[in-house]
Amino acid sequence: MSTWNVEYLKPTLLQPVPLDIAISRAQPPKDIEKVAAEIGIHPDELDLYGRKKAKVSLDILDRLTEVRNGKYVVVAGITPTPLGEGKSTTTIGLVQALGAHLHKNVFACVRQPSQGPTFGIKGGAAGGGYSQVIPMEEFNLHLTGDIHAITAANNLLAAAIDARMFHESTQATEALFNRLAPKNKQGVRPLSEIQLRRLDRLGIPRVTDAEHLSEEQRVSFARLNIDPATITWNRVMDTNDRFLRKIEIGLGPNEKGHTRTTQFDITVASELMAILALTTSLADMQKRISRIVIGSDKTGNPVTADDIGVTDALTVLMRDTVRPNLMQTLEGTPVFVHAGPFANIAHGQSSILADKVALKLVGQDGFVITEAGFGADIGMEKFFNIKCRYSGLQPSAVVLVATVRALKMHGGGPAVVAGAPLKHEYLDENIPLVEGGCDSNLRKQIENANKFGIPVVVCVNKFATDTDKELELVCSKAKSYGAFDAVVSEHWSQGGAGAVALAKSLVKATEGPAKEFKFLYDLELSLEEKIATIAKEIYGADGIELSAEAKEKLERYTRQGFSKLPICMAKTHLSLSSDPTKKGAPTGFTLPIRDVRASVGAGFIYPLVGEMTTMPGLNTRPCFYDITIDPVTEIIDGLF
Amino acid sequence: MSTWNVEYLKPTLLQPVPLDIAISRAQPPKDIEKVAAEIGIHPDELDLYGRKKAKVSLDILDRLTEVRNGKYVVVAGITPTPLGEGKSTTTIGLVQALGAHLHKNVFACVRQPSQGPTFGIKGGAAGGGYSQVIPMEEFNLHLTGDIHAITAANNLLAAAIDARMFHESTQATEALFNRLAPKNKQGVRPLSEIQLRRLDRLGIPRVTDAEHLSEEQRVSFARLNIDPATITWNRVMDTNDRFLRKIEIGLGPNEKGHTRTTQFDITVASELMAILALTTSLADMQKRISRIVIGSDKTGNPVTADDIGVTDALTVLMRDTVRPNLMQTLEGTPVFVHAGPFANIAHGQSSILADKVALKLVGQDGFVITEAGFGADIGMEKFFNIKCRYSGLQPSAVVLVATVRALKMHGGGPAVVAGAPLKHEYLDENIPLVEGGCDSNLRKQIENANKFGIPVVVCVNKFATDTDKELELVCSKAKSYGAFDAVVSEHWSQGGAGAVALAKSLVKATEGPAKEFKFLYDLELSLEEKIATIAKEIYGADGIELSAEAKEKLERYTRQGFSKLPICMAKTHLSLSSDPTKKGAPTGFTLPIRDVRASVGAGFIYPLVGEMTTMPGLNTRPCFYDITIDPVTEIIDGLF
Repeated sequence: MSTWNVEYLKPTLLQPVPLDIAISRAQPPKDIEKVAAEIGIHPDELDLYGRKKAKVSLDILDRLTEVRNGKYVVVAGITPTPLGEGKSTTTIGLVQALGAHLHKNVFACVRQPSQGPTFGIKGGAAGGGYSQVIPMEEFNLHLTGDIHAITAANNLLAAAIDARMFHESTQATEALFNRLAPKNKQGVRPLSEIQLRRLDRLGIPRVTDAEHLSEEQRVSFARLNIDPATITWNRVMDTNDRFLRKIEIGLGPNEKGHTRTTQFDITVASELMAILALTTSLADMQKRISRIVIGSDKTGNPVTADDIGVTDALTVLMRDTVRPNLMQTLEGTPVFVHAGPFANIAHGQSSILADKVALKLVGQDGFVITEAGFGADIGMEKFFNIKCRYSGLQPSAVVLVATVRALKMHGGGPAVVAGAPLKHEYLDENIPLVEGGCDSNLRKQIENANKFGIPVVVCVNKFATDTDKELELVCSKAKSYGAFDAVVSEHWSQGGAGAVALAKSLVKATEGPAKEFKFLYDLELSLEEKIATIAKEIYGADGIELSAEAKEKLERYTRQGFSKLPICMAKTHLSLSSDPTKKGAPTGFTLPIRDVRASVGAGFIYPLVGEMTTMPGLNTRPCFYDITIDPVTEIIDGLF
Repeated sequence: MSTWNVEYLKPTLLQPVPLDIAISRAQPPKDIEKVAAEIGIHPDELDLYGRKKAKVSLDILDRLTEVRNGKYVVVAGITPTPLGEGKSTTTIGLVQALGAHLHKNVFACVRQPSQGPTFGIKGGAAGGGYSQVIPMEEFNLHLTGDIHAITAANNLLAAAIDARMFHESTQATEALFNRLAPKNKQGVRPLSEIQLRRLDRLGIPRVTDAEHLSEEQRVSFARLNIDPATITWNRVMDTNDRFLRKIEIGLGPNEKGHTRTTQFDITVASELMAILALTTSLADMQKRISRIVIGSDKTGNPVTADDIGVTDALTVLMRDTVRPNLMQTLEGTPVFVHAGPFANIAHGQSSILADKVALKLVGQDGFVITEAGFGADIGMEKFFNIKCRYSGLQPSAVVLVATVRALKMHGGGPAVVAGAPLKHEYLDENIPLVEGGCDSNLRKQIENANKFGIPVVVCVNKFATDTDKELELVCSKAKSYGAFDAVVSEHWSQGGAGAVALAKSLVKATEGPAKEFKFLYDLELSLEEKIATIAKEIYGADGIELSAEAKEKLERYTRQGFSKLPICMAKTHLSLSSDPTKKGAPTGFTLPIRDVRASVGAGFIYPLVGEMTTMPGLNTRPCFYDITIDPVTEIIDGLF
């Protein structure tokens, strides 16, 4: 694979650094057709969505099957403050450095942000400063509709579950059977393929005419007998709507008293989003959808999306989502924006498919930089143990993002609160606090990364208030804990030029023979053993404590045949422990497992450590107050 | 404007006519870029969404401002059976005839279908047989995301309403004010533009620092005091989900008992969909959104989307929706698919903007054919009195679709029930039933159309079981009631070739000087007078009867200053009266007005005649059981 011939963009760097959207607007992007052509995507492999976004065909994987993959690098972070420490910005700054400055073939693979936070408090997630995906409003709004397709598919299944329970409870078996398998004009009751598959699962031989089913077979075929208390499939919406966190449905007179308490999650918390992120082809996605377990029947057997009859309908709705979305950075290098599952109840990574296509496009000497959500104890652990396991891809290096601010917090600094002014400890030089943070959280996160056999490059994401002494301390400490290297980076204010040292260090870390990557646990271990391994090895816990409910669920999932799945911990990202107020590297604690859930379609079991909110809310003054659009120029302001 | 140079497609006509999706798949569409070029759209006016769909820039309206509009034709129908009588199919067949066979410049403007019915019972709405929009799966699924954008915008406003009520009820005024107008680093409380507009409405002079507001002004500014009982803004979803027809929200512990009973509507029933259909520019859409009334405050004043603070956020979410979506017919003529509001609680028409752009593109000698939902008593009446009023466009002719089947029903035939086999009256020749239907429903609908001063061409949409004698009777009867002409059409089985006679007749009807188009009522009449005019003149009622609730609402809306709005009747389409079982042309009845609602943003008042379901359900065996996708070829089957 030869080196690309990319026209790099050269944004004018201003001081002070303007607002993200002003930076984005000041730099006209290339037409995405040109970006695609520059990196060897053929015209017939590209579907445009407007001028600055395109979907890319998976046929590239077949065309380039002989090309060797590029280097595969994950960007993770130390345990962050509630303000975030700049993983996305580092990801983009790093590819700008590798591409526009070191002239490597390089792709960033990032998650599509939820629109909920964009109009709530957090703003978008396109990176920031001079390290951004552009145009940022296109990145943050709708993109090519993948999240909307997931909402539609998720809610079709949810509606079908309640409608099915309603029809089962209001109809005698004969009427139900007659409606599910109606006679055609020839007087025959043919079953559709998805209905025949239900017969397969029930151990009933396939029939060309359902009339031949016995009375007993008709009952098993027609009655799913869903136990409403076991339903785990919620409705979703890509909006921060706290009033939908717990609702009662079916209160209308025509629903005849068949009410049920349920909830809406934000769309990115949907299992379908996790499926999109973990799937390896449309055929694989179809299989994963068919395996989705929506709950149990009254005898304790799992009920699947296939039982409900919607596998292919959902696959049809999500057909176009499997193709990664191509955009570009502020310096004109390519980016895939694809999938964005929650990082607590799901694995928090962009898609396997985007990484795979990108690794082929960059070729053997190129780089694919992908980001793992939350701190490394969560994001990196799931990247290795879940994402790399399903993809079969071999990671080359970890970039671990640290900030002096977060290290001071871990060293004993006062609480950092979003919206409140930073305390003086964070504005003035304070070596003891930095040192304390290095010796605890930074050390543990580096040691964790090394457990997977992969070199770690620490990126100290520099803020204006950091002193040279503080920055040097972090670098020397990091190396002493086993980091391959540690470098200060200024990509937020300088763009790719500010991350050249980081990029060079990363290139060095990935030279030579591939490292011996190893998983943390074997899938053959019991679910409980796997959970305990993560808790002890990664979080530093003494062990785990299962609630009665968690114990019962582990037994159920084991009985139902799901014990070979990997584990996706749903834990706070604000501490290595389950207590968000415990900073540094806590020890001497037992990790409480409150409950356990299964995303069988996506392919993981997720233990709940504490309460997880799957539906954010709107504060008193959400950022929509500041969003404006000029209806003539169509210029949008106030997005961030 | 010269005649286009269009490459017409020539689908192979098979007998018996295959399934719609098989017909669609058998005819490869042209690349949409080619379609656009053929009809004079410049490359920079086109945004591709894949290869077969594109959004078209509104800049065309400026570029072609000097071009005279083409002929503007609405397709309406007699009162239908529950099976539908083929208005969409006629619309497409007619443009295929005018374009591919008579070589006129011609555009079809049709509605985007909701995905709910596509996966429920009804199937898509791309036309049918050899008169279709292709590719039909692209037409029926996602399109370019307009409906999804409406869902997102609608639900952001809904979430913001409940969040605002929650914050107002849980915070003292001082805390609320401090959060709504926080101090910046300079110690100043600047208000955003949308907050300043609230001051304007409150009659409070604008301030650069909200600190200068008096105690009393702070209260009025910060407290919307929404009366929960008056909220008319529901959440929406583009899914048939009957269990969301009535729900209780806010049951979570963090919502502290602030529960509320509300409902989800299907997205196409959202006022935002009606706004999209009626808007004339992005600036106009922004204004309409700002005027949306979501309910009243506790003193009876309207509370608007602008008060909630979301006008521009919603406009940003819907920015791309204003551009019409270009697709093509089976014979390669252009189609705009744009907007699809409900035809009962809204006006049931595709967008004004698509019609406007199309009228310029076809030029003075060309034709734009647009469809009005439901029977002519509803669809055509709203087309004239609402859509043409807001667009200022001059209609040229009405095509009124009739079928022998529906006429037999109106003549006294037995009930036609979806899913049940047709009774013999509908399969064998039966002159008396046809005659009865002509003398009642067909006559009334033709007379209604003539009240607007516009020529009516009756299209008898031929079914295989119709006899020549039946068809001739309909044609001669129609002409005797004042139709300009009446012709038999076979576009379902023959494509455009089957509608050439209809097309020729339509060309004739629109020749010569423009007819004197007149509205049915003057906007200066009182709301009650306007409702009564429609009931008497169009439905044949003796008068109207207002419930106490309806009376109170009419008073409220008049007091609030909305009495100059046009009326959008929410009435069954299965009868000219309010009783769906009354066929023909009922007389001697009083139209009951159960309730009245306002879509102030869209710009109409809608009286509810009987119960209107705004959320369909899924039956026991929805059509998703038959939908399949081959994950390798991506071929979809089972959509219809």
